[in-house]
Amino acid sequence: MSSEFERATAVRRRDDGAYDAAIDIGWDIGGNANGGYLIAVGARAMADAVGRPPLSITAHYLAPGQPGPCVVEVHVLRSGRRTATASARLRAGGSDVVALLGTFGAQTPGDPVVVDGEPPVLPPYAEAASARPPVPDSGFGDRLAVRVRPADLGFAVGAPSGRAEIAGWFRFADADPDDVPIDVYGLLLATDAFAPVCLNVGEFAVAWAPTLELTVHIRGVPAPGLLRCRFSSRFLTDGMFEEDGEVWDSAGRLVAQSRQLALIPRPSPSG
Amino acid sequence: MSSEFERATAVRRRDDGAYDAAIDIGWDIGGNANGGYLIAVGARAMADAVGRPPLSITAHYLAPGQPGPCVVEVHVLRSGRRTATASARLRAGGSDVVALLGTFGAQTPGDPVVVDGEPPVLPPYAEAASARPPVPDSGFGDRLAVRVRPADLGFAVGAPSGRAEIAGWFRFADADPDDVPIDVYGLLLATDAFAPVCLNVGEFAVAWAPTLELTVHIRGVPAPGLLRCRFSSRFLTDGMFEEDGEVWDSAGRLVAQSRQLALIPRPSPSG
Repeated sequence: MSSEFERATAVRRRDDGAYDAAIDIGWDIGGNANGGYLIAVGARAMADAVGRPPLSITAHYLAPGQPGPCVVEVHVLRSGRRTATASARLRAGGSDVVALLGTFGAQTPGDPVVVDGEPPVLPPYAEAASARPPVPDSGFGDRLAVRVRPADLGFAVGAPSGRAEIAGWFRFADADPDDVPIDVYGLLLATDAFAPVCLNVGEFAVAWAPTLELTVHIRGVPAPGLLRCRFSSRFLTDGMFEEDGEVWDSAGRLVAQSRQLALIPRPSPSG
Repeated sequence: MSSEFERATAVRRRDDGAYDAAIDIGWDIGGNANGGYLIAVGARAMADAVGRPPLSITAHYLAPGQPGPCVVEVHVLRSGRRTATASARLRAGGSDVVALLGTFGAQTPGDPVVVDGEPPVLPPYAEAASARPPVPDSGFGDRLAVRVRPADLGFAVGAPSGRAEIAGWFRFADADPDDVPIDVYGLLLATDAFAPVCLNVGEFAVAWAPTLELTVHIRGVPAPGLLRCRFSSRFLTDGMFEEDGEVWDSAGRLVAQSRQLALIPRPSPSG
């Protein structure tokens, strides 16, 4: 185990088939574990149970995840030649925290390939803005070294860009991604590691946006190096918005797509 | 029960809390029940169990669904003030056919609203092309009265458009949607009722594309009338593609978004 993230998401299979793990301190937003972090913990257990890496994982959030021991109960639903499917529940402190459903397996590289899209254009990492969550945390901002386009941080200083979009670089703070490539579990975290894009619209409260559902499709294993990420929403209606994410590796390949359905933060009393 | 679709997706709660239903004949593609149809059956049971309509449902397909009785086992995972979450398995003939995970509740209409997109431009319904599945079915094409942009049917006559996109009108054949509005369960079907968009790329086999995972977000209840649908894919890589769907109602509102991860059909031996 070579990185903080690997240690913080490690799982250990018990005799009864469930997995012991821990919600590590310092991967939280405002005291509650980050949703992508929780998926990574659950996905490690599910992947171990089916013996294959994740292809598509959906999480529904049931209760805030607070630091401490947790258990991931995995049910293998199908194990076929090409893919396997499993469901899981991550439980902590006697509560169900996250429900997961996923299909596992591998891509089958080969032609033909159709790609209609490209990585976001970003300033060099050193010139991008250090991004920290808009609410207090106990270490998440230190464990990651996310940097975003400076204009996309406008919401934090009362100057939202007016567009529901945030793009930036993703890496872990403790590991040079050229030496320790970000793996598919890191991708799961990357899809939920940026501020909610609704903050940049300028018409909503600057507060955390609770995720109802997050689905991540793993489209490839990242090449060594930094990841480029772009998140955006087109429909912020009736109290909800979808947030679409793309994660691109240093070789210019799309390695993950995500979509979540989240609640638009309610206006603060003063707003 | 006023329509074929309602009857074909009806569920009946048993004393043990599971739901009896049937995979009705004639909602299949090549003999296997359509994926959206199966989600509608499962979602009706889940919605009944939690007492709220679907907001976000994810399905992973485990085995082909063949006509006959089926059972939907629902587990309510959480029931909160604003939303409830449930998982379900649809079983038929002794096999698990679909695993589902969903959150249920209602939108909260109100301002502000941000919409960056518009319904697809379609020819009038009467001038659009009648779309039937590219493989034999036993009634699906008769129960629906889907019509697509003529160019989007090019794949069926050896002239694929070259773009991974299909757009068209959705309605049921037996019910005038002005009289019997299409409901949220009809939306679930609509998101999986068109041919896979990979067929129009022209570099892949013309065959059915197995869905690994399909997630639908319900964004509103449709106004009476026909639905406009658009499906597209931007990344067809390493044997897989995502297919993004949008469903718009007659009032010009986005009422559903979908994304699936599917396998690119393998080339036929002659290809």
